[in-house]
Amino acid sequence: MEAEFLKWLRARLPAHPALLLGPGDDAAILQLAQDARCVVTTDTLNEGVDFHLDRCDWRLVGRKALAVNLSDLAAMAARPVAALVSLSLPRNHALELAQQLFEGLLPLAADFDVAIAGGDTGTWEGPLAITITAIGQLTEQGPFLRRGARPGDAVLVTGEFGGSILGKHFTFQPRVREALLLNAKYRIHAAADVSDGLSLDLAHVTQESGCGALLDLAAIPVSGDARRLAERPDDEQSALEHALGDGEDFELVLAVPADESVRLLTDQPLDVRLSRIGTFVQEPGLWVADEEGGYRPLMPRGYQH
Amino acid sequence: MEAEFLKWLRARLPAHPALLLGPGDDAAILQLAQDARCVVTTDTLNEGVDFHLDRCDWRLVGRKALAVNLSDLAAMAARPVAALVSLSLPRNHALELAQQLFEGLLPLAADFDVAIAGGDTGTWEGPLAITITAIGQLTEQGPFLRRGARPGDAVLVTGEFGGSILGKHFTFQPRVREALLLNAKYRIHAAADVSDGLSLDLAHVTQESGCGALLDLAAIPVSGDARRLAERPDDEQSALEHALGDGEDFELVLAVPADESVRLLTDQPLDVRLSRIGTFVQEPGLWVADEEGGYRPLMPRGYQH
Repeated sequence: MEAEFLKWLRARLPAHPALLLGPGDDAAILQLAQDARCVVTTDTLNEGVDFHLDRCDWRLVGRKALAVNLSDLAAMAARPVAALVSLSLPRNHALELAQQLFEGLLPLAADFDVAIAGGDTGTWEGPLAITITAIGQLTEQGPFLRRGARPGDAVLVTGEFGGSILGKHFTFQPRVREALLLNAKYRIHAAADVSDGLSLDLAHVTQESGCGALLDLAAIPVSGDARRLAERPDDEQSALEHALGDGEDFELVLAVPADESVRLLTDQPLDVRLSRIGTFVQEPGLWVADEEGGYRPLMPRGYQH
Repeated sequence: MEAEFLKWLRARLPAHPALLLGPGDDAAILQLAQDARCVVTTDTLNEGVDFHLDRCDWRLVGRKALAVNLSDLAAMAARPVAALVSLSLPRNHALELAQQLFEGLLPLAADFDVAIAGGDTGTWEGPLAITITAIGQLTEQGPFLRRGARPGDAVLVTGEFGGSILGKHFTFQPRVREALLLNAKYRIHAAADVSDGLSLDLAHVTQESGCGALLDLAAIPVSGDARRLAERPDDEQSALEHALGDGEDFELVLAVPADESVRLLTDQPLDVRLSRIGTFVQEPGLWVADEEGGYRPLMPRGYQH
């Protein structure tokens, strides 16, 4: 099956200027930019945990496997260069499944100028596992890190949150272009992408930065899907709780100096809306203002690994 | 389980000069050498296909998953820099299994100066799949490619072949140091590692190079394990057939200019023996001399993907 699949795949892989040597030898060779720093990340999607093949378009699984990696590169403000794709395929429909996965991921790779530099494809008695490793490079502005938020910085986010299970977890746009533009034109102190949950990923930023954050709950951009979920009779969470804890929004959360945040919110330079949802503070932890003007702690929620 | 595992793992990961930013952020940052060329390869080992957890030391599985990738880097004459390790873990014994896999691969990583730059660890209802992506860099001598063999070049191999299933497929030494030394001190026209089978991987080199190879069967270094396999009452292959087709020897097969091969075989500069097993020829395909002084074709055998 692998030989037939590779023949099919290679006919679909466009040339890429960074790919000095493509699939077919023992390894691929990439030409990176001159500073020779290389950003690397890997993510695995497992059938039955991250998706159910009997309930979704298989192409969406392939797309998502690449998109989650691109989101990690975006969180570093790295420009995507290449990806390697490994598939552990159930024997049943292996070829069709592999093709559908690539039908889903190749358009996204083209959209973000990602070279498919290699992979490994095997069949087995197990379910589908798809592992993608993405390689990017930094611009002269350097990386976004999780550490770097300072008390007084604004907490900014792209887009809306919550209810991604209704569809966005498959169809989201990794915020690569947004991160590169922000890094090129604005002062950003820290960033992360929201994969586990807005409050939990923000908590990671505060922990890495040695500070806390005071959230303005009324300012959290709650998605229509979060509201739709909350309205279901069997749902026990509010729309805001979905926004704070659902995860897989794959938006960016940013620490931006206060003055710069004013400029940024006025400019609104992205295709997606930027919102200020709070302020980084000295006191570790997440906080919200209570009705008496004090603070109460907010427990970070989300997908705990 | 993942949080506990990551805490355990990070305490074991040494610092590495190329790892500008290690695991813990959205991605890792590597500093490559100045020419900014990057060699990338990925391999997946699937339970039930590549190993059986109930029949082997789990550490050997982790070691092999890294070693097969290092062998691919060796085949390119690339110096290993970093690896990313993704695990799809059966829920039963997930933590112990993850730890044992790393207990096996970390000493090999240390031995070859490989930074563990990241990974992904999840549990599921499926069997164990382990995917490693390795990143290397080229020396000033450039890469070994499969294409580049020329008629008249000697076919040289490191080590011995056949019967790796008796143990060497787990315990082999990736020929990284050997490849770097050969590339630094000798003229090498082409190279591959033997993963699928000596005759099959040599056939790949001839196909990519647009030539063929005439083999001297009496010169093939047949391993003791190939002989032991062939002696089994239920085994239907000769020791030579095992050497030509078994695969997973992870030795190097090289195309070396004839005069250089004489120097190389005299020097024997490696810890492992170099043997000449034939000559590259114009006529495509693999050939052996028959008793009347003519050629007869040799069908390449090995693991067909």
